[in-house]
Parts: sequence; structure tokens; C-alpha cells
Amino acid sequence: MGRWAPGAQGRLASAAVELYGEHGFENTTVAAIAERAGLTERTFFRHFADKREVLFSGSAELQSRLVGGVEAAPADRAPMEVIAAALLAVDGFFEDRRDHARRRQAVIDANAELQERELRKMASLAAALAAALRQRGVGELASNLAAEAGMAVFRVAFEAWVKGTDDRTLTDVIRAAMVELRHLTSGEAPAR
Amino acid sequence: MGRWAPGAQGRLASAAVELYGEHGFENTTVAAIAERAGLTERTFFRHFADKREVLFSGSAELQSRLVGGVEAAPADRAPMEVIAAALLAVDGFFEDRRDHARRRQAVIDANAELQERELRKMASLAAALAAALRQRGVGELASNLAAEAGMAVFRVAFEAWVKGTDDRTLTDVIRAAMVELRHLTSGEAPAR
Repeated sequence: MGRWAPGAQGRLASAAVELYGEHGFENTTVAAIAERAGLTERTFFRHFADKREVLFSGSAELQSRLVGGVEAAPADRAPMEVIAAALLAVDGFFEDRRDHARRRQAVIDANAELQERELRKMASLAAALAAALRQRGVGELASNLAAEAGMAVFRVAFEAWVKGTDDRTLTDVIRAAMVELRHLTSGEAPAR
Repeated sequence: MGRWAPGAQGRLASAAVELYGEHGFENTTVAAIAERAGLTERTFFRHFADKREVLFSGSAELQSRLVGGVEAAPADRAPMEVIAAALLAVDGFFEDRRDHARRRQAVIDANAELQERELRKMASLAAALAAALRQRGVGELASNLAAEAGMAVFRVAFEAWVKGTDDRTLTDVIRAAMVELRHLTSGEAPAR
């Protein structure tokens, strides 16, 4: 278990994605999750509102890291540099978590309702990034575009990282995707 | 009524978004929509599976225009040029429909379930664009990034167009957003 999961919350999250993968999300009960983690249902409900929220409990911290990254960027940085800095500020959040992320993704890919929840999360993150850029005085169109393009990079990089079998970290993949996006939009021939 | 809505289907769609706006999506019945359009419920169900599908019935045509735009682009075009051509291939689909699009958007913005359906539609469009790029021999990362960035442009431009009070067409706004995205990713100072 990685450093992200030192206590009960991490054990419950690991147990949950394992069980969702083995038996399906719908067929897994909170009682079974607690049992697998060697904890009680009461402990489960101290950490999570329900079994769906186990999969999305990191959203608030992810959003606060992204928005914090925008706020912390030097004032003279261009919007897309600010977004890049914010995406790289998630460094550490996902490290040591690729196996967990992979299992979680498989569960989400198998369930339409969870996919919709995930899409809403991504849309919320984009809206939060755009709002943070506007706070810096960036215009509305540029804020929205930079935030949406940034989340496009994040989604694509995250998917590639989760599927990947090499040793690259998520931030390595995000950096490569930012470079690729610049190539693409500049009209240069992309790396094939 | 615009050229997009010459017959029963268009009259039903117009009546539906009017009623959703007046009474809320949940409080509107198919019977009320049919009555407002001067048609029967039976006619409604010839055109739409249910009252939700009235809001999403254009998705299939939109997707086929976008994918058709990718397929029709000359073989030597770079991926982002292909995506730009595809976005501009929706020209005509939305023209004369801004009032309808604005009313529809207000209905969707007021209902979490409809927002999720809209997000799923956008994700499907991005996946279809990425698949069409891969068919042209574009690599996976570049296909995914160009498609996601293209849909980012589309979403932001569509929102600006729907909210806008000037005479710009959707394609005018899409062109401006593509230029802005290139500025942003190139690291140039954006237009504020």
C-alpha cells in the first residue's frame, strides 16, 4: 500500500476497488468492503457517504491542488503556463497509485452511472480552473479555453498513464502531452 | 421557425423547449408538448422515444457531420487542421437555431440529469473524432489530444455563441476560438 493510503480510509478504498472489480460495483455491499478491509461498517461510514463516494473521495483534494497551482503561479505567467503548473501540482497525489487507479478505471468503464459521475467531476474541475484563471484577470474566452484544454491534456495523459506499462510518472506523461498539444495546435507535424 | 424545423419534428422540439422553460422539464408532459405543437402524442412518439430525447435528437446528425468532416479532409492535413475542418462542417446545422439552442441550454443547466446526458454526448463526440483520426493513421496520443482539444473549442465556442448577443455565427466563434487556442498553447500573450 502506498503512502496515499496509510490508514483506514486507504484500506477501505483498496478493498472497495478490489471487490468492485471481482464482483461488479452493483453486487458489492458496504459490509463486504468493511470485512475485506478488516474494519467495521461504522468505520466505513465515518470515511465515505456511500460505496459510490469511495471512487470519488479524492476529487476535493485534486480540485484544491489544481486551483492552488493556479493561484500559486507567478503573476506574469501566460494562462497556459499557469494551467501546466497546476497540472504538475498534482504530482505526488497519484504516485504509487497506478494499480489503484487502473482498478478504479476498470470499475468506472463498466458502469454508465459511474462514467457520468466521472464526467461531472471533470467538468467541475475545468470550471474551477477557469474561475481561478478569471481571478487572475484572464479574459473569459481565454480562461475557458485554457481550462478546457488543460483538462483535455489531463484526461488524455491520465488515460495513457493508467494503461501504460512503462515507468513514466503521471507528470512525465502530462509534460509530454502538453508538448504534443503545442505541436498539434501550431500546425507542426505531430510525432506519430 | 428555421429551415432546420420544417415539419412535425421541429414543431414538437420547439414546443418542448418552450414548455420545459416555462414549467420545468420534470413538470412537462408529452401530452402538453403535443398539444402546444398542435399534434398528437402518437406523432410525438413517431419522432422521439421520450421527452428527454427531444433535447438530444440532433446528436446523431451532429456526430455524423463531425466524423464526415474528418473523413473528407485532404490526406495531407495535420490533425488539428482536420479537427478544425470537422468543426466547421457543422456549419448550417445550428444556424437559425440560436434561440432554440439558448432555450435548450437553460433547460439543461437547470437539471443535473440532463447535464450528465449532455456531458456523455460531448464525450461520445470526442471519442468518435479520435477514432476517425486514428483511421487516418494519426497516433493514439495525438488523436485523443486533437479530438479532446477540438471538443474543448467546440464547447467553449458554443457556450459563447449561445450567450452572445452579436451577429456572429457559430462558425465565426469556432474560428476565433481555434485562433485563441493556438495563441494560448504557443505561449503568446492572449487577447484579453
